[in-house]
Amino acid sequence: LVERYLARYREVTQQAILAALPSKEPRRYLYDPVTAQITRGGKGIRPALCIATCRAHGGSVEQALQSAIAIELLHNSFLIHDDIEDGSWYRRDRPTLYTEHGTAIAVNIGDAMYALSMRPLIENLVVVGPDTTLGVFREIEHMLLQSVEGQAMELGWIRDNVCDLTTDDYLRMTLKKTCWYTSIHPCRIGALVATGNQMDLDRFNRFGYFVGAAFQIQDDVLNLVKDRGRYGKESMGDIWEGKRSLMLIHLLNHSEASDNERLRAFLALPRAGRSEREVRWVADQFTRYGSVDFARAVARELIEAAIDEFDVAYAVAPPSEDREFVRSIVDYMVQREL
Amino acid sequence: LVERYLARYREVTQQAILAALPSKEPRRYLYDPVTAQITRGGKGIRPALCIATCRAHGGSVEQALQSAIAIELLHNSFLIHDDIEDGSWYRRDRPTLYTEHGTAIAVNIGDAMYALSMRPLIENLVVVGPDTTLGVFREIEHMLLQSVEGQAMELGWIRDNVCDLTTDDYLRMTLKKTCWYTSIHPCRIGALVATGNQMDLDRFNRFGYFVGAAFQIQDDVLNLVKDRGRYGKESMGDIWEGKRSLMLIHLLNHSEASDNERLRAFLALPRAGRSEREVRWVADQFTRYGSVDFARAVARELIEAAIDEFDVAYAVAPPSEDREFVRSIVDYMVQREL
Repeated sequence: LVERYLARYREVTQQAILAALPSKEPRRYLYDPVTAQITRGGKGIRPALCIATCRAHGGSVEQALQSAIAIELLHNSFLIHDDIEDGSWYRRDRPTLYTEHGTAIAVNIGDAMYALSMRPLIENLVVVGPDTTLGVFREIEHMLLQSVEGQAMELGWIRDNVCDLTTDDYLRMTLKKTCWYTSIHPCRIGALVATGNQMDLDRFNRFGYFVGAAFQIQDDVLNLVKDRGRYGKESMGDIWEGKRSLMLIHLLNHSEASDNERLRAFLALPRAGRSEREVRWVADQFTRYGSVDFARAVARELIEAAIDEFDVAYAVAPPSEDREFVRSIVDYMVQREL
Repeated sequence: LVERYLARYREVTQQAILAALPSKEPRRYLYDPVTAQITRGGKGIRPALCIATCRAHGGSVEQALQSAIAIELLHNSFLIHDDIEDGSWYRRDRPTLYTEHGTAIAVNIGDAMYALSMRPLIENLVVVGPDTTLGVFREIEHMLLQSVEGQAMELGWIRDNVCDLTTDDYLRMTLKKTCWYTSIHPCRIGALVATGNQMDLDRFNRFGYFVGAAFQIQDDVLNLVKDRGRYGKESMGDIWEGKRSLMLIHLLNHSEASDNERLRAFLALPRAGRSEREVRWVADQFTRYGSVDFARAVARELIEAAIDEFDVAYAVAPPSEDREFVRSIVDYMVQREL
């Protein structure tokens, strides 16, 4: 069910984005890379959550589609800028956009996807009327601001080599960086366009937070585990970047004095000064000190909390395949392998 | 008159932006640099054009203020990303934001100013009602897309070392990169919020194009002339960057074979490979081949055209100080020294 619905809603969103892209110059420096970025696509979790939540509350695909398009475009804008900010070389098993086109053009392409998200938000007017259209703009505004705040925290921690972080710090940052735009707002907006301004949208906040945080932790675990067998700079990017994952925070707080010193010495180096040997050593410590197990356990707890919250969030949605899909996506978040 | 009105409308816009900034974390990595960026400010031409055009058509400062704020925030977002894209070290006689905070955090701060521009556009609702609010969103959407298209052209020409460009290419790129967001849309939006959807806004397009293009050419000339006495990498940044200014395009099309070859060899180098000696040589060629005089002459022609078009664009605006201010800003565009 999960795979089928994800594929269906990803397809309808992707096709609508591609159909709406301007067919004009500048192609080579703008619209061709934008098309390539959209065509490659991702899992489409965000537009799927938006469309399914809309349908689960009596709405249609059409009512949610413009908002889903905007969310997916903004997501891609974030990804392009994130990869520049993190210095990531690979995404979805391909070179990142900025390594292919250069930083200058890639920053601008990220801006372009931001700009492109505005049209569908205006197009909402025809489908859902002016009140709901402006309501969606309010949701998007909150979503954008939360996302840049979370991103600022994560980047600041890396730049200033902040090491005294707790699980709470991590979850607060992840709520901002990931949860609002990945799960909370897609659900809120889906219900908003289905029901007009009739519903208390805050009912989705806790559910979306638990799901989004579990998603992010799983993402961090996969970044490590998937690449464990590989060698070179394409593997274990999060460690190379000094990313404050839940695993790194756990390790900083639980490793013995001598290991802790070595870990801090590693993190104090600029990225270019880090060696593959030390990166692999850090990965080994994650296993040795149970940091990966800890992260997995937190993700499972969040998933359990999300399952409880699902009944609250979707209390007024009658039984339907779309409702069931959203329910099933919760487990999918930690079972997925990519 | 120009200086007085610019100062007045810049002040009201800046104060409103600062008052609306979230007073919360993350300060150090986000809101402090945003505040610093806004406090330093620029000339405030864009919000001034928007507010003055609104008042000239019977509107109030209040009717235009939220849109003016959004335009100024987006302008700052562009500047921050531009400096990263161009590799510029200095702006407004200070180190650029990314040299101070690092590229990662600076990209995110640019995104944040983009995100912050959405609130005032929604706030419009209270002041000008839903139709005009959505009308302003439509204007902003067009403005953003044109700007990223123009930026893509300029960056692409530099990256691929495109040398077969004409004055027409330059003006087409400048219309997109500069004119829509610097002059055309500020005027259009000012009239829109003053009159509701009653007016044909296209009347401002030619006027705004001529003014904006003259402004950009003057900007390029000043980048060269102001810095002519200075030494080092902070001076003549446009030449270091290989920026396709009207002067460079003129020189490429008019220098003798041996000089032309040397110029193309210079442009074929990566930025880091260019020497100060060669940069100064290029600057000398601009004088020798009359490229600066040519650019100045084109700017003057554009100013004359703008003066003619002013009467068309502001035909329905009765005499007022605000109307006179907009008329006077035309000459100011090429007389300004910074």
